[in-house]
Parts: sequence; C-alpha cells; structure tokens
Amino acid sequence: MTHSYMSHLDCPKCGTHYDADQLQQLCTCGSPLLVRYDLQAAAAHLTKDDLLRREPSLWRYRELLPVRDAANIVSLGEGMTPLVRLERIGAADGFQQLYMKDEGTIPTGSFKARGAAVGISRAKELGVTALAMPTNGNAGGAWAAYAARAGIQATVVMPTSAPTITRNECDVTGADAYLVNGLISDAGKIVGRAIAKHGWYDASTLKEPYRIEGKKTMGYELAEQFGWEVPDVILYPTGGGVGLIGIHKALLELQEMGWIGERLPRLVAVQATGCAPIVKAWEEGKSASEFWNDAETVAFGITVPKALGDFLVLEAIYDTGGCAIAVDDEKILTAQRRLATLEGAFLCPEGAATYAAALDLKQQGWIQPEDRVVLLNTGAGLKYPDTVQPQFATLQPDDDL
Amino acid sequence: MTHSYMSHLDCPKCGTHYDADQLQQLCTCGSPLLVRYDLQAAAAHLTKDDLLRREPSLWRYRELLPVRDAANIVSLGEGMTPLVRLERIGAADGFQQLYMKDEGTIPTGSFKARGAAVGISRAKELGVTALAMPTNGNAGGAWAAYAARAGIQATVVMPTSAPTITRNECDVTGADAYLVNGLISDAGKIVGRAIAKHGWYDASTLKEPYRIEGKKTMGYELAEQFGWEVPDVILYPTGGGVGLIGIHKALLELQEMGWIGERLPRLVAVQATGCAPIVKAWEEGKSASEFWNDAETVAFGITVPKALGDFLVLEAIYDTGGCAIAVDDEKILTAQRRLATLEGAFLCPEGAATYAAALDLKQQGWIQPEDRVVLLNTGAGLKYPDTVQPQFATLQPDDDL
Repeated sequence: MTHSYMSHLDCPKCGTHYDADQLQQLCTCGSPLLVRYDLQAAAAHLTKDDLLRREPSLWRYRELLPVRDAANIVSLGEGMTPLVRLERIGAADGFQQLYMKDEGTIPTGSFKARGAAVGISRAKELGVTALAMPTNGNAGGAWAAYAARAGIQATVVMPTSAPTITRNECDVTGADAYLVNGLISDAGKIVGRAIAKHGWYDASTLKEPYRIEGKKTMGYELAEQFGWEVPDVILYPTGGGVGLIGIHKALLELQEMGWIGERLPRLVAVQATGCAPIVKAWEEGKSASEFWNDAETVAFGITVPKALGDFLVLEAIYDTGGCAIAVDDEKILTAQRRLATLEGAFLCPEGAATYAAALDLKQQGWIQPEDRVVLLNTGAGLKYPDTVQPQFATLQPDDDL
Repeated sequence: MTHSYMSHLDCPKCGTHYDADQLQQLCTCGSPLLVRYDLQAAAAHLTKDDLLRREPSLWRYRELLPVRDAANIVSLGEGMTPLVRLERIGAADGFQQLYMKDEGTIPTGSFKARGAAVGISRAKELGVTALAMPTNGNAGGAWAAYAARAGIQATVVMPTSAPTITRNECDVTGADAYLVNGLISDAGKIVGRAIAKHGWYDASTLKEPYRIEGKKTMGYELAEQFGWEVPDVILYPTGGGVGLIGIHKALLELQEMGWIGERLPRLVAVQATGCAPIVKAWEEGKSASEFWNDAETVAFGITVPKALGDFLVLEAIYDTGGCAIAVDDEKILTAQRRLATLEGAFLCPEGAATYAAALDLKQQGWIQPEDRVVLLNTGAGLKYPDTVQPQFATLQPDDDL
C-alpha cells in the first residue's frame, strides 16, 4: 500500500513550519513554502526496484508527492518523458555525452503539466473549487486543462502577446480567460486583486506550495533514467525558475534517502539577453534579482522580469557550482533549427536556448567535451509555430520534381 | 540478448513471400506487403514479465519489430502513450468504462511518429539515403523529423491546405518540401513520378512494409496496459487506416503467441461525412472502397479519398465484428470541446471524431453502457489551433475582474 510521506510545509527563508493539510499560500514573511517529507521512513519502505514495475508517469514517485488519497489524483498520464541522446549534433559540435530531456511529449505539450497535475490534485484534495493565476501561456493552458478535469473553475490572465495556441487551450478547456495589455507582472497584479475580492485560491507561480512538487519529478526521472547517477551539467531555461528549484530539491531529497551520492550536477539557469534578471544577479554575486525593465525575447515563456523564487534559483546555482548565462534570440533560433535538422527534435525556443548556452559554455571551457550534459527542453516547438517561416514552392498536379 | 524474430514479408492478397532483408515496396500484384515473424520462437523466449523492466517506448517490443541491429534504431522516445480513463464525460454520457489512448503525447504530437520511427529505422538499416512521400501533414512532419535524425534526405509533397504546423515541422527539420494545389492523391502522383525519375525510396503509406509495424505497437500497448485483456470496442479515426490494420495485426500476433485469448475487440473505422469511402464500402458489404470525390472535413488527417490498404481495413472490421461510421464536422467540433471542458483533454479533430461516433453508436445500441470503450486520439489538438477561436476580453493593467 503506497501513500504520501509528506510531513509538513516549511519556509526556506524564515524557517516557520505550516500544517500541510490546511490550504496555505505564501509564508507570512512573503516567501514561498516548500513541502517536506519523512524521507527516512520513505527510504525504509520504498526501493528503487519497486519503481521499475510502476506505470511511466510522475505518479510512480507517489510516496514523495503531496497527495494523500490516490482518489484525488488528477492525471492525464504526465511524466516519465524521454531522455533522448543527441549523438549527431554532439559529434558535430564536440559534446561526447549530450542528452535532451524532452518535455514536449507530455499532455499540453509543456512541462507546465507536471506542476498543474500535482498542484490541481492537491488543490482538489484540499477542497478548492475556484482558482486564478497569471501566465505567459503554457502554465495557463496546463492549469486550465487539469482544472477542467478536476471540475475546478480556473481564471487565467495572460499578456496580449501570449502565444495563440496557449490561448486556445484555455478557451477549449473552459477557463475564464482574459488578456492584458502588459506583461505577466501586470497580469499578476490583476489576479492578486481578484483573489482578494473573490476569495479564489491563488495558483500563481510559487504562491501555492505544490506546483514545485510536480516540477521536481524531472529531477527524480533524470536520476532514475541515468541509473541513479546524476549528469554533470543540467541546463534549464529559466523564467520563474520553478523547474530548477524543483530539480535541486529532488536531488537533495534523493541524497537524504541515500539513493544518489554526494556529487550534484552543476545547474545552469539559461535566460535570454532580452530578460536576464537571474544572470545579472548571479554575475553580481547577489542572492536575489531585480525587476528587469522592457523584457522581450522570442523565448516567450521565460519573459519573467522578476521571479518570486529568484533566491531559491540562485541558491540552487551557488549550491551546485552552477552558473547563469544569457543568449540572444538569434542564437536561440539558430540552435532550434540546428537541433531539428541534425536530431529531428523540434524544441520550443526556451528549450533551444539551453543548447545555445551549452555551446557558449563549452567555448568558455566551463563545459568539457566529456561532460554528461542534459538540455531540459521544456516544451514542444509545435506550440510556437511562428518561430519557423517556411517558403515552399507550390506545384500544380501535373508538375514534376 | 534481444533480437528481431522477423522471418519474411508476405502479400496478404496473393500470398507471395519476399525476402525481408532486401528493400521491398509493393507486391508485384499491387498489394502492400506485411512483415511476418517466427512468433512461436518469440513466445518461447520473451515473457510478459520481461517487458515490465523495459523502457516505456515502443521499442520494448523489440522482438516483434523489424529492426535487426539495435544500432539502427532511430528513436525520439516514442510510444507507451498514456491510457487515460475518461470518467467525468463517461458518467455524463452513459459510458461506464471509457478510455482514451493519447497519441498526442508523442514526439511530433501525432501517432505518425510510430510509423516513422520504425519505418525510418528499417530504411536506415537497409541502406536508404533518400526517400519521398505525399502527406496530409502529420506523417510528413513525423517522417521529416526521423529522416533528419537518421541523416536521410526526405522529400515531402502536401496539399496547400495542409495545417501550418505540420508544414513548419517539415521546414525546420530540413525536408525538401512542396505544396500542391490539390489533394493528397495529387501529391501521391507527383511523388510517384519523382520516385521513378530519381530512384528514391517510396515512403508513401503502405508502399513500404514497415510503417505498419510501428503503428501496430498501439495494439500491443493497449493489451499490455489493460493487463493482457482486450477492451470491447476500439474506435479509430480512419484515413489511410494503417493504425487500424496495425492494431488488428498486433492482436492476431498476440493471439498466436498465446498472450491474449480468443476474443478480439470490435474495431470501428470512424470517418467524416465529408470523406467516408470505407463507411460506404462497409455499408454495401464490399471488400474494397471507391474513390471519394470532393473530399473535405475539418478532420484534415482523415481526408483520404481512397486508401491503398482499404481491403485490409475492411477485413479488420469484418473479422472483429466491428463497423464503420461517419460523423459530421459539427459533431466533431462539439465532441472536441466537450472532451476538453469535462476531461481537460484537447484532442485533435480526428481523435474527437471517435467520441462523436461512440455517442452515435451508443444511441443505436451498438455500444452498451458497460462496454469497455477506447477512443484512439491520434494526435494533439495543439496541432490544429484553428479549430478553436477564443473571444477573450482585453484588460488594461488597472482593470479589475
């Protein structure tokens, strides 16, 4: 009989503990809350071998997830995405062990589905019937989908520049969706006021504690897929940074359970030069970022001028000996096309940014040719059709090639 | 040590045998060829339990696939897609055991990736360096991607009305792609002439024997996911029909291996009223279909006026006590939205057509409320953004909800 070993929530900033079985949002000090588990007990009951016979979804890590009763799980089969070896481009560009973790092959076509699946499952378990959130698109699409599946009403506010397909996802799944003339930070303020007024659950990034638990499963999966070893470097496209925080948390949990050794992968926060607050903070050796003005990049999902969890992202980088690096849009689109033509993999621009960054880091000598390097592709290129503009010839039926 | 138990190819029409280790296209009689295996030997060496420890991709069925040397496998991690229970819409509409096999969560966002992965792997193994094919879009996107990964040059011809995203996939992966003012049948004629002229490998639907081997793995997976039982009804959106032929073939193979019992699921070919040649043939009790004039439907992927494998599709229906049914575009779009709002699942219109058909068949009494019913969703709704037209209000940053 499997069950969750969740023990409580705590604040990574001030240390205050909270009851996990009550609805919680931020700590009174303003920090996000993190979910804690009785990892010793989990390690005593769960074995790596148990996992082998479980279904290939993130729910295989049931004991280390926050849902108490399996009946509350709201799942579309998300997780255990492929770890794809990139041998051809690696050989061409001098990476001996290059991999892509492909989150394009997940419901809603974006890794946001992980956070939504676990966040919505736990919200349902705790009795939530209505929630609201701002989004750059993919998170809104994912939360709208899982909320629909759970019978929870979702209100979503997104910038007018949010990608068409993510808007359509919100519409078709029945969310109450709005556009705003502004950035995700403007959408966030509208949502904040609406929540205060209507009493909705705040599902904004890191303002509820469970989204990160979904995202962290990328860390578990990477460890399991590498046979409980960890790679040398993981490059992660960083907007809100929840995935990076989550992967770091997951690896620390696996260490505490004795499932992986002392060494951690160096975590790299990849941003676009058009919106690089984490990179700036890291370059200045700071523990928090400043609001980035006039943010703009083709990698729309990482256009986050100021992330609530910035201090946790920076902590993950410092703790693992990682770094932060920005790449421009031209390099991103070149990397996207090169990955597609050599590997057949159509990454989203955010995912492609990680390869542009890997190339720069290798040139700087920060990545060695023999390092085992993982690109975290956070979503399907399909969701950003405008990054490709084909010019095909049009034939008549009688024409010959 | 795992290996393929492939023995030879044979013609389902005239019975002629062919050497599997030479490049083959159609039988001299004009029929597609099928791949045959030494199933007794496979059953003697492979156990259901062996499968449990293998990775969640279609390559877990390695022994029953046509690639001789694992080094030739060209994979992006495709297969073992989720089998998702649809409880809410089932409860609302009177289906007690309704499931969706979700092929939206696969590289390229369409089940065409299965055929492409196996077809390209085997083409690579047999020394192919250039291929060509006509497509309605998704197959082109998938074959272009896997061909790129294999270093094979792909030439793709598609109707001008092919969906934008599938065109972009062909472009970004470096295929030599063309549009034609016409239908897929017109594209097919251009490809036919080009192949004769340039000596390329013909990767058109069923003109090479291996695509179907990729598609059949949906049948293996369904059997495995249901614990080696089979459901009562499988509804499949039918254009070329390769998936239906493949599922039928897979189930017959599993029977011969003694892995499933006598009973087969009733296979249902779902078409759109705007292009229903298989339905017409089935209603008339025929063993082949006629060319459908002026074909048009929102479910673009199944706009196939005359399928080369029509006789095999009809055989699968007759053999399993299945049926063929057409639904109109309005019903398809209504089903798509209803699945999204109740289940959070954004199916492609082809996939949604299967639910529209299930509703009609239940009303006719052909499906019983207690039947275990599987909708085969062949791709992600994301690839057809135009089926949704949101009308969202636009806010200013100071507005309140």
